[in-house]
Amino acid sequence: MPLILVTNDDGVHSPGLIVLMKAMKELGETFVVAPDRERSAVGHALTIHRPLKAELLREGLWSINGTPTDCVAVAVEKLLGRRPDIIVSGINRGGNLGDDLTYSGTVSAAMEGTIMGITSMAVSLVTDGGQPYHFDTAAHYATQAARHIIERALPFDTFLNINVPNLPIKDIRGVRFTRQGKRIYAGSIHETFSPSGEKYYWIGGGRPFWEHGEDTDISAVMEGYVSITPVHMDLTNHEAIDLLKRQWGSP
Amino acid sequence: MPLILVTNDDGVHSPGLIVLMKAMKELGETFVVAPDRERSAVGHALTIHRPLKAELLREGLWSINGTPTDCVAVAVEKLLGRRPDIIVSGINRGGNLGDDLTYSGTVSAAMEGTIMGITSMAVSLVTDGGQPYHFDTAAHYATQAARHIIERALPFDTFLNINVPNLPIKDIRGVRFTRQGKRIYAGSIHETFSPSGEKYYWIGGGRPFWEHGEDTDISAVMEGYVSITPVHMDLTNHEAIDLLKRQWGSP
Repeated sequence: MPLILVTNDDGVHSPGLIVLMKAMKELGETFVVAPDRERSAVGHALTIHRPLKAELLREGLWSINGTPTDCVAVAVEKLLGRRPDIIVSGINRGGNLGDDLTYSGTVSAAMEGTIMGITSMAVSLVTDGGQPYHFDTAAHYATQAARHIIERALPFDTFLNINVPNLPIKDIRGVRFTRQGKRIYAGSIHETFSPSGEKYYWIGGGRPFWEHGEDTDISAVMEGYVSITPVHMDLTNHEAIDLLKRQWGSP
Repeated sequence: MPLILVTNDDGVHSPGLIVLMKAMKELGETFVVAPDRERSAVGHALTIHRPLKAELLREGLWSINGTPTDCVAVAVEKLLGRRPDIIVSGINRGGNLGDDLTYSGTVSAAMEGTIMGITSMAVSLVTDGGQPYHFDTAAHYATQAARHIIERALPFDTFLNINVPNLPIKDIRGVRFTRQGKRIYAGSIHETFSPSGEKYYWIGGGRPFWEHGEDTDISAVMEGYVSITPVHMDLTNHEAIDLLKRQWGSP
């Protein structure tokens, strides 16, 4: 029986996590170790300036007062008893597409698993908010993908970033293996004022523009396909190394 | 005169920031917008659940009660008045080598600049703590690199991650253009107990093991060279796309 670690960044009480946990139980022994509250947009953050509390909520379900990355680290090293065969993070309420994946706590949990050498994937439901959430659709494709990568593993240092359109299963047109798209612009910072009249800035609320290459994650999702992007933890631009050597001579 | 935005993750009062600010003033008009306190290991985190306060400490020097990524976003969109020609993040007290770069607030500030299409670099001083900090060495090489990339720009979607050995300038053996190394293992989570006897976990303190490829950032620094790694914001493992298509057939 494979051991499956489930986590997320929307917090231990989020519906996407519960649906994912139930789906993963079909594939193996499932442990959930997730943040005690929402930790969206926290990036690949580790909590190093204070100790963390792990709370057993019920058999196989822990919460930690930290980030998704903390949850993976503490789960693997301290809570699970043996090394998980796979880490599945999600189902995030909201897409993690293009450049935005580096902000994502959900995706960062899969990064942490990958750095530890554990087969990992992140699953996100691409919603605009408002409509019903088709977590069951995302869980269906997450189960399919998890089964594949438990059997065959993944290329070295690579995890899957899966984004699922918020549609009923019957309306999904299929699966595409994609590259990470490029966000052209997302800037939106609102000015707001405190009751005493001081100016503050509040980040968020903008609508990003995307490069719409046919083979990108964002295009796949917009056309009704599940997007699966293999993400590499080697961020080196290898081609640029030679370019820099030529340009700079011997600095 | 180029406009230079300086930020960091050690906070607006850290000595590495002050040294870097002074060095950058030789190259152009310099603005500092940095976190009001230390924000190490925060990753590429954006603060979206509360408004941010920007405080003008003195001409050209702002602090923000947020992450390095917040600082870049607010600075570029709201504080600077015009788009910076370059973003320089650091000088971090401690290396940002190998896989660890994704945890780093310092590096994430350069990521944010890159996503915005602004030429960016991160500079870190690789120390074990204890010895004197040779921020002047790092500032010397940061100035050299900044001059280069202001003149020639960088490849698309790419920033420089610069790590400088903590040595006097005369003991630096040169510069190497490197790839991101691989951390093999770093796990270290300590168990500790609250005054009332509850168990807590505290992350940190471990000594990582590294893959010592000759062309890696970590090897360069260990051998006394300044390491300059071109880092790409396209995290796709492009080769893996075809592999997955072959392996999975049409899922």
